[in-house]
Amino acid sequence: MNQITAYAPATMANFNVGYDVLGLSLNDIGDEVELTLNGTEENNILEIINGKGLPLERDKNCCSVVIRKMQETLNSFKGVDIVITKGFAAGSGLGSSSASSAAAAFAYNELMGKPYSNKELVAFAAEGERVACGSAHVDNVAPSILGGVVLSKGKKASDLIQLPLIENLYAVTFFPAIKVNTSDARKILNNTIDLKTLSQQVSFMGAFVSSLYEKDIDLFSASLQDLVVEPRRSLLIPRFKELKKAALENKALAFGISGSGPSVFAIAKNADEADHIIKTMEQVYADLSIKTQAHKHLLCKDSGARIVKK
Amino acid sequence: MNQITAYAPATMANFNVGYDVLGLSLNDIGDEVELTLNGTEENNILEIINGKGLPLERDKNCCSVVIRKMQETLNSFKGVDIVITKGFAAGSGLGSSSASSAAAAFAYNELMGKPYSNKELVAFAAEGERVACGSAHVDNVAPSILGGVVLSKGKKASDLIQLPLIENLYAVTFFPAIKVNTSDARKILNNTIDLKTLSQQVSFMGAFVSSLYEKDIDLFSASLQDLVVEPRRSLLIPRFKELKKAALENKALAFGISGSGPSVFAIAKNADEADHIIKTMEQVYADLSIKTQAHKHLLCKDSGARIVKK
Repeated sequence: MNQITAYAPATMANFNVGYDVLGLSLNDIGDEVELTLNGTEENNILEIINGKGLPLERDKNCCSVVIRKMQETLNSFKGVDIVITKGFAAGSGLGSSSASSAAAAFAYNELMGKPYSNKELVAFAAEGERVACGSAHVDNVAPSILGGVVLSKGKKASDLIQLPLIENLYAVTFFPAIKVNTSDARKILNNTIDLKTLSQQVSFMGAFVSSLYEKDIDLFSASLQDLVVEPRRSLLIPRFKELKKAALENKALAFGISGSGPSVFAIAKNADEADHIIKTMEQVYADLSIKTQAHKHLLCKDSGARIVKK
Repeated sequence: MNQITAYAPATMANFNVGYDVLGLSLNDIGDEVELTLNGTEENNILEIINGKGLPLERDKNCCSVVIRKMQETLNSFKGVDIVITKGFAAGSGLGSSSASSAAAAFAYNELMGKPYSNKELVAFAAEGERVACGSAHVDNVAPSILGGVVLSKGKKASDLIQLPLIENLYAVTFFPAIKVNTSDARKILNNTIDLKTLSQQVSFMGAFVSSLYEKDIDLFSASLQDLVVEPRRSLLIPRFKELKKAALENKALAFGISGSGPSVFAIAKNADEADHIIKTMEQVYADLSIKTQAHKHLLCKDSGARIVKK
């Protein structure tokens, strides 16, 4: 085997209850990374399909950075040519760099005969986040590799907790194509939170985790609330309140901001309701000159990174 | 039936991961409340056994306040004579007023033919907390009535979540008989928490809840940490660091402050280790002139309020 292609899905960080520590995989959109052993010790980015403006330099591209880190740790430098196919827009708040980083880590691990477990790959993929966003956070790459809902108590493999899913729910994502810089999205947050809000947010996380184990949709819906990020970041998203109202009035179980935005999400009980929520959100933007992209995603556990060609 | 006696256990609020929203019942110590229908519309406190200094006035005693609230809601005023037997010290941080309030609510409900579910009783018992501590918080009364570990997402019956327990663990409680006023214990807390600490604490709650469902003792131990209250309230407890070190070096799975203190707790894997942890904590205080009381408590689900005589 000297060529392999892996797919890794888009992801939604925070997922309302877990700022910086929770993420959900969005199975239906993602990136592909094709690796071909090139017989040298260097890794070359040959092409980024649908990725205009993304860096081809090996020390700036998240895929080559991830692979180099794996090579250094393995102390084995089997160089690869890399072709990246972006499946969704960068800057959407849906984990674009994470999907590429996750696919690169997953593909290279397979090519090397699986020296690492999937959980161990998360720390490597996080190095792609460091070069793309400035910090090696795991809340996107963990669900992109592992699938489903992942809680990260820390950055070590043993800190990653795959939570059960309530099957057959749908996530709707709605991306208004405006630019929200991740660092601006961080700056707009308050640096501190009052104790009462902390207690409530902590209780919502506990209740949310319980709802997943109990398959309790009412509790899932009641607990999936963001008291920390949404009050601030929603200011950066045009007509956020109207979008939220439209979704919740049309049977959405929850609504919130995906990662640092500008994408927002809703959770729907089934595909029809997901389609309907998308329509109502599009109507909110009907008279604006902002392009939008909406998707629905079946929530399923086997939604992590996978090999699609070898 | 015109006489009934209920027992309700001591409880530990916060339980490290859930400031103001989580509590654990401590089955092995508790209060008893005996009610006797007296043929009038008034409720009288006849006696408080082992409760020196606690108020006998019906508008100041938590039991008569709870029962009056139930009578008002039922719009039926069958008066009772009340005898309270305190099973553990007030001011210990183990939910003394809560145990009496919970037992009173449970007993009166039974005497009236169970008009309310156990979860519905929590809001009544919380009225006892209002008169005893100034606010109708539920984090002690909920586990005292329901048993086990209870997460309270809010104050309504539907907000109370009984989490599963890892069976056969023991909680050790260690009470140094110094006075820590609940309002002082609140005042010493910082009013705000930085975002990074919030994220960590939220992740610990999520991981803790997952550990209970998964019966994962390692994760239970790793996640049962208090980043919010302990750094401040521990300053009010003599030799807190030494107690913590002694417990953790002697196989305790977790250590922390019970409610607003001064009691501290440890979690032990079995009764022998619980006994050993108690000894090492007592040694820490051996040369101090502070009286101490230590107990071990088997963690079990059926540890809520119950009728003991009718």
